[in-house]
Amino acid sequence: MMTAHPRLSLNQATVKHASLEEAIEAVQSAGYQAIGTWREPVQAVGLARAEAMISASGLRVSTHCRGGFFTVPEGPERRASIEDNRRAIDETARLAAAGAEGSQAILVLVVGGLPEGSRDVREARIRVADALDELAPYARQAGVTLAIEPLHPMYCSDRAVVSTLGQALDLAAPFDPAVVGVTVDTFHVWWDPQVYEQIERAGKEGRIATYQVCDWATPLAADVLLSRHYPGDGVIDFASLTRAVEATGYAGDIEVEIFNADVWSTPHPQVASRTADAFALAVAPHLAR
Amino acid sequence: MMTAHPRLSLNQATVKHASLEEAIEAVQSAGYQAIGTWREPVQAVGLARAEAMISASGLRVSTHCRGGFFTVPEGPERRASIEDNRRAIDETARLAAAGAEGSQAILVLVVGGLPEGSRDVREARIRVADALDELAPYARQAGVTLAIEPLHPMYCSDRAVVSTLGQALDLAAPFDPAVVGVTVDTFHVWWDPQVYEQIERAGKEGRIATYQVCDWATPLAADVLLSRHYPGDGVIDFASLTRAVEATGYAGDIEVEIFNADVWSTPHPQVASRTADAFALAVAPHLAR
Repeated sequence: MMTAHPRLSLNQATVKHASLEEAIEAVQSAGYQAIGTWREPVQAVGLARAEAMISASGLRVSTHCRGGFFTVPEGPERRASIEDNRRAIDETARLAAAGAEGSQAILVLVVGGLPEGSRDVREARIRVADALDELAPYARQAGVTLAIEPLHPMYCSDRAVVSTLGQALDLAAPFDPAVVGVTVDTFHVWWDPQVYEQIERAGKEGRIATYQVCDWATPLAADVLLSRHYPGDGVIDFASLTRAVEATGYAGDIEVEIFNADVWSTPHPQVASRTADAFALAVAPHLAR
Repeated sequence: MMTAHPRLSLNQATVKHASLEEAIEAVQSAGYQAIGTWREPVQAVGLARAEAMISASGLRVSTHCRGGFFTVPEGPERRASIEDNRRAIDETARLAAAGAEGSQAILVLVVGGLPEGSRDVREARIRVADALDELAPYARQAGVTLAIEPLHPMYCSDRAVVSTLGQALDLAAPFDPAVVGVTVDTFHVWWDPQVYEQIERAGKEGRIATYQVCDWATPLAADVLLSRHYPGDGVIDFASLTRAVEATGYAGDIEVEIFNADVWSTPHPQVASRTADAFALAVAPHLAR
């Protein structure tokens, strides 16, 4: 029986083409205790069935991915997005309740890029704040933490106008940390000259909802979205970043989330196992607990 | 006779495959008053010949590109880089002296990425500070301003560990603003949540050595280095950024610098003319002077 580090979780995006059942099997075969779910494979089997599968698996749910994409101006598209985020909050609460003890009811938010035809990134950022205002009471009632994810600035125009940890913390500041926190993903933040001070700040403000790891290497993939690598295969200093996150007292699961065409075309159990090995070498030695 | 905006300068990288002679001809044919030179085409004809060509052209020199690439640890490679930067400073001074009145003796610095095999971005950044320490007295004596260019964070690992305007200003802070300033390039800074406050700060600190414009559009080119576009062809808000730079009192030339395979394969006079048109529409209306 293989075992993986007890705090390691496989984010389901790492095995993008797996069904929920296949993802659970892959994770279990490699000895994980936790999984980070995605909406599409959950919806493919239906929420009730997904809950039953998660419950039967004995796995913890570390996060649910993902909400957000609410930078469009007021109108039917924005209403549909807010409504969809409410559904994502419901899913998050139910999956976390179905998961083993220690499951986290965390919805990761990728906030969205510039609306079609817009050049106003400041206005798009204000709309993110507005959406948080609107969703926070609903999330609180559901017991869900919304985890704003700053994405690498190369995704600012088409995916997420929140580009730094400091900016995510500023957006989270008006809310209870139990309701609005942040996602710290090494791939997105490693380059930031302020990353260490902002991780420390995030810890002091109680905002680190989840810590995700994967590596950065060049040349970037032709589709830059798919440029993520196994920890250790690139240039990110996992020692310093992991110690900084641990120093804040963060004790939750740590997800590996890799978007990469080669990884996606590898058999899922092999990906889960390779991920556990990479985590053991590049990340686990720097964990405080 | 065509005319272009009197503050518009064509950065020679926009016509990468042009010789210095061809670049000067293209710029003149489109009615420019200024050009930003690059080292390779200058060295291809020799510095003395380049000076004579610039002098005969009647053009101003807006900047010389580029120095930097000094993040490697101490040793022969670092010594060679420092020595090469001294030569670049000399070239900058001589070309500016050869240019028409209003020429600027500004050497743009792309500082370099992580050294081969390194994961220590903080150490690489300290080496940038060390290199500035070493080069500043030489630049002062030559009457040259070193203009640190923050590059988009997607180039942090392989090209420039200086990723934000705020970071560039912190690096410049110990030096006389006449000796060490910054380059503000819209493509690199537009996404930054702090860009407006940092432009204002740069103005107050007298550090804006040069303002460069080009646009951002997605999908990014397969080689992300070549993702730059004519102003107006992407999502950058040139109105707000240009007004912010102008509000600091910046009154120098404004370069258009485009790395783009399609632009590079277009006849040079056509590129110069198209650039002038794009500048007139997207940037010039927002200039204070």
